[in-house]
Amino acid sequence: MISTMPLPPRPEVAVFIAASLDGFIARADGGLDWLLKAQAAAPTGEDFGYAEFMGGVDALVMGRKTFDSVLGFDPWPYAGTPVHVMTRQPRLAVPAARQADVRVCRQTPAELLAALAADGARRVYLDGGELIQACLRDDLVDRLTITTVPVLIGQGRRLWGPLLGDQAWRLQSVRHWDCGFVQTCHVRRRPADEIHPLPSAP
Amino acid sequence: MISTMPLPPRPEVAVFIAASLDGFIARADGGLDWLLKAQAAAPTGEDFGYAEFMGGVDALVMGRKTFDSVLGFDPWPYAGTPVHVMTRQPRLAVPAARQADVRVCRQTPAELLAALAADGARRVYLDGGELIQACLRDDLVDRLTITTVPVLIGQGRRLWGPLLGDQAWRLQSVRHWDCGFVQTCHVRRRPADEIHPLPSAP
Repeated sequence: MISTMPLPPRPEVAVFIAASLDGFIARADGGLDWLLKAQAAAPTGEDFGYAEFMGGVDALVMGRKTFDSVLGFDPWPYAGTPVHVMTRQPRLAVPAARQADVRVCRQTPAELLAALAADGARRVYLDGGELIQACLRDDLVDRLTITTVPVLIGQGRRLWGPLLGDQAWRLQSVRHWDCGFVQTCHVRRRPADEIHPLPSAP
Repeated sequence: MISTMPLPPRPEVAVFIAASLDGFIARADGGLDWLLKAQAAAPTGEDFGYAEFMGGVDALVMGRKTFDSVLGFDPWPYAGTPVHVMTRQPRLAVPAARQADVRVCRQTPAELLAALAADGARRVYLDGGELIQACLRDDLVDRLTITTVPVLIGQGRRLWGPLLGDQAWRLQSVRHWDCGFVQTCHVRRRPADEIHPLPSAP
């Protein structure tokens, strides 16, 4: 007898990230000077939809390098949202001031997402270059909001990595700003979706 | 005595190309199946601005691999526009049927552009992955019209390559289609441009 096991439920996994026109999210040393310089041309206070996006997020999942880079931010930018840091390091020190907000995870991304779903999380913000690449490879990413900055930097840490096969996405929205930033939102179009055609892009 | 030599005049160099969301212009073997499959979702006859773009072009400059891939096209897609094929091969055979349209060049891109300017060319269409990368590296590209297709293919021939330094671009326009294609047009913003601020993006 064949039993059809339902897929484990998991929250929607959303990426919200800025990239150079040539697809880098940071210089090789993690530097974001090119992004900060470009942002200086934007109106003061323009957040490119970040606060709205964060308002719809129940938890944050990030890689260890990203955690290292945000650890010194003051004020802590994720107040009120639980942060899960994925690492293979046997011990990762979380400063006392952050221990209420941050949990260190050594599960796989799929295991963590199942646990977060069991805790009631409906949408997770996935951050960090290596972790985004790994989750895309495992086809765990559902939504990509990418803000493309009009600069070529030629080298650095890439947003995109190798995949196991093609992935079709559906364009959900496009916005742009006078400073030249273009923000696209794509949602994953998996084979099962083809049975129920999605509405056409706006 | 210091004489200030004017830069040699050259035509505007424009790229018009489709890329996957992860920045590939073809599979490793040159395959475009992912692009043709995505285009099948577009309305019949939609050319994504190609005819309008071609109408503003005085000459086409392409790399040898691109030439090989278009050589069999029937009808010849560039009728009426001179095609210059850049190659380092000592002899490149051009079929008799194409000899009126195609010139083989062994100059550098900068030399060819100066010669085209002397012949009165105002805008050149630059095509071919390696040649685009080489001309971007030499800062010879003035306009980038990129149509981004909502598919990740994970590997292949990249649109972007290494540069000698950052390059700032100005967003000139964004268009999108129901099939999920997003077309951006960027123009190069060189340091000299900063003296005469460009109008803000539309």
